[in-house]
Amino acid sequence: MFEKLKNLKTYEAGKPIELVVREYGINPDEIIKLASNENPYGPAPEVIEKVKENAKFMHRYPDDSFYELKDKLSNLFDIEDKNIIIGAGSDQVIEFVVHAINPKKILRAGITFAMYDIYSKQVGAEIIKTKSNTHNLDEFYEEYKKHKPEIIFLCVPNNPLGECVDSKDVFEFIEKIDENTLILIDGAYQEFAKYKDKNKEIKPKDILKYKNVIYTGTFSKAYGLGGMRVGYGIANDFIIKNLHKLRPPFNITTLSLAAAVSALDEQDWINMGIENNFKEMQKYIDFAKDKNLDYIESFTNFIVLYIPDSTKIANELLKRGIIVRDMASYGFEALRITIGKPEENDKLIKTLRELS
Amino acid sequence: MFEKLKNLKTYEAGKPIELVVREYGINPDEIIKLASNENPYGPAPEVIEKVKENAKFMHRYPDDSFYELKDKLSNLFDIEDKNIIIGAGSDQVIEFVVHAINPKKILRAGITFAMYDIYSKQVGAEIIKTKSNTHNLDEFYEEYKKHKPEIIFLCVPNNPLGECVDSKDVFEFIEKIDENTLILIDGAYQEFAKYKDKNKEIKPKDILKYKNVIYTGTFSKAYGLGGMRVGYGIANDFIIKNLHKLRPPFNITTLSLAAAVSALDEQDWINMGIENNFKEMQKYIDFAKDKNLDYIESFTNFIVLYIPDSTKIANELLKRGIIVRDMASYGFEALRITIGKPEENDKLIKTLRELS
Repeated sequence: MFEKLKNLKTYEAGKPIELVVREYGINPDEIIKLASNENPYGPAPEVIEKVKENAKFMHRYPDDSFYELKDKLSNLFDIEDKNIIIGAGSDQVIEFVVHAINPKKILRAGITFAMYDIYSKQVGAEIIKTKSNTHNLDEFYEEYKKHKPEIIFLCVPNNPLGECVDSKDVFEFIEKIDENTLILIDGAYQEFAKYKDKNKEIKPKDILKYKNVIYTGTFSKAYGLGGMRVGYGIANDFIIKNLHKLRPPFNITTLSLAAAVSALDEQDWINMGIENNFKEMQKYIDFAKDKNLDYIESFTNFIVLYIPDSTKIANELLKRGIIVRDMASYGFEALRITIGKPEENDKLIKTLRELS
Repeated sequence: MFEKLKNLKTYEAGKPIELVVREYGINPDEIIKLASNENPYGPAPEVIEKVKENAKFMHRYPDDSFYELKDKLSNLFDIEDKNIIIGAGSDQVIEFVVHAINPKKILRAGITFAMYDIYSKQVGAEIIKTKSNTHNLDEFYEEYKKHKPEIIFLCVPNNPLGECVDSKDVFEFIEKIDENTLILIDGAYQEFAKYKDKNKEIKPKDILKYKNVIYTGTFSKAYGLGGMRVGYGIANDFIIKNLHKLRPPFNITTLSLAAAVSALDEQDWINMGIENNFKEMQKYIDFAKDKNLDYIESFTNFIVLYIPDSTKIANELLKRGIIVRDMASYGFEALRITIGKPEENDKLIKTLRELS
C-alpha cells in the first residue's frame, strides 16, 4: 500500500531536547535554547497584545484570501498581491513548488536547508549537490549543465552554514539558466543579510521579470514568529497562480494571520533585534579569534564555530542546560549557535571557555 | 513547467464574504456567520486563557513530537501514541494519505467533503462517486467492485449533508473490502453524531485491527478551534509510521498545540456546546415542519433545509447580514445552515419566515 514511501525516512526534528535537559535536573526556565535559530526577542509587545485580543476568535476560520497580509507585504516589497502566495512557513511554499514541478532531479549546495531534500525525496527526485558545502555558483552552473535539474535551490544566506552569495552573482547566475529550470531563492534570513551588507540584498521585486524564479520569505526569523508558521512566496503571477492550485484552504491559523499582519507594523522592533544580533555575534567572533578557532562568516542570526570534539562539547553544554546544534552529522566538528540575548551569549561563551 | 497542474482548478474557499456583507453597510459585529460549521461558543474560557499565557512563546517552535497532545488523545480514545499522527486540521492527514498512496482512483459519496477531491485531483486520481448524494454503502460496494479504487472516503457523519451511516454498517463494509484499498473514515463531526445516537459512534480503537483503515478527527468542530488548524489521524502503527514520512516538522503552531492540549481538558464545555447544538437544531426542524419544507436529518452541527429559490433567499439573508451556505452549486435548492447561538438561530428563522 505504501510502496512509494519505501525508501523514505521519517524526518526527526530532534526529540524534544528540553526533556533531555530536564533529565539533568535543570529548571526549564533556566534552559538556554540556541539551537533552532529562533529570534530570542520574540515578536514586539504589540504583536503579543494583538494575538491575545484575537484569542477569542480561535473558532473562526481565517480570511482565506489573506487580503490584509498580502496588502502589507506588497507595500513592503513594492509588488502586487497577485505576486504573493502565503504558506505555513516558507516550508510549505517550498512544498508547493516541489509538488507543482514534480522534479526528477534537484540541485542544491553541499550543505543547506533540510526541507529541500525532504520534499524532493517525497516525490522521488534525485538530489544533486555541489562539491562545496557552502554556495559556489560556478559549481552550481557546472552541475546544472551536467544534470539539467528541474529545480535549483539557492539559500541566500545559507542555513545551516551562514554564508551568503552576492546578489549580483545570483542575478548573473539566473541569466544563464534555461527557463525550464525553476530557481528558488530562499530568503529566510535576508533581513539579517541585507542589514549587514547591502551587496547581499535580493529585492523580491527584481525577480518578478523572470518566468522561472521564486523568492521565499518567512516570519519565523527576523519577525520572531517561528512557532506561528507563516511564510510567503513571491514570483510572477503565472507561477503564483499555478502554486495556488496546490494551496489547501486555511493553511495558516487565525492567530498566525493576526500575528503576521501586526508584526509587519513593528519594523522598529525587527530592526532592534537585527542590530542586537550582529552586536552579540561579535562576542562569538572575538571568542573564536581569542581561541584560534575557525568560523564561517555569518549573514544570519547564527554562527558556525569549528570546535574539536564538537559532539562532546555539545553534550557537556546540554548537561549545563544550554542547547546548541552539533554539526557532526554533516561530517565536520563544529557547533551552530543561534545568537541569543546578551546574557545567554555571555553564559554560553563563559561555559565554552571552561570546557575548552 | 506546470504541465501536471493544467487540469487543476484553484480551490476558492469563497471570497471573504464578510466583506460582501459590509458592502451592504452592516456593522461587522452584527454579522451572523452560519456558513462554515464553526462552533458558535468557541473554546472554553480556560483554553483562551491558556493561549493568552502562551502568546509570549510565539517565537518558539512547538515540541515537534506533540508528546502531550498525543498523550491526552491516547487517553481519550484508549489507544497508544504510536497510533496517532497530528495534522494541520484533519485536512492535512487526508493530504498525507492521498500523497502516500498516490491513487489512480478514489471512491466517495455523491456529495461529500470537498477536500477529498482537491487532494485526489492534485495527484491526478479519477474521482468515482456513488449515484446517491448521501452515503449508501451498497452503492459504495458496487462501485468498489467495479472500479477497485485505492482509497474509499466515508464521511461519518457526512459534510455537507449531515446524514450518518450506522457504525455497524461501516464495520460490515470494511470486512468486505480488500486490504489493498484504504478506507478513510472521516470523523470530523463524530462528537455530535455519537451524542445524538450511540449507533453512529465509531470508536477509533476499533479500527486499529484493520491494516487498511484510518480514522480522522479534528479540533475544528466540537472543540471550537476551527481557526487553529489541528486534527489527527488514528490507525495501526504501520499506517501511522508511513504517514509520518510525509509530515513536515512543526506542522501545527505553538499556540494551536497549547489550545488543543487545553481543550481536551474541558470536556464539560464541549458537552455544553453539543447539547445546545441539538436543542437549537430543533428550532430549524420545527420551522421546516411548520413550513412544509424538507430537510435532511442531521447528526452534525449544521442542517440542510430544502428551500425553493435558495440562491435568492441566501442573497436576501446576506443583505441582512446573515451568511449561510447555498447548496445550488451542488445542483439542488437548499441551504446548509450552521447551528448558531440561540439568538442567532432565532434571528435567522425570523428572517426566513419573513422571506418565504
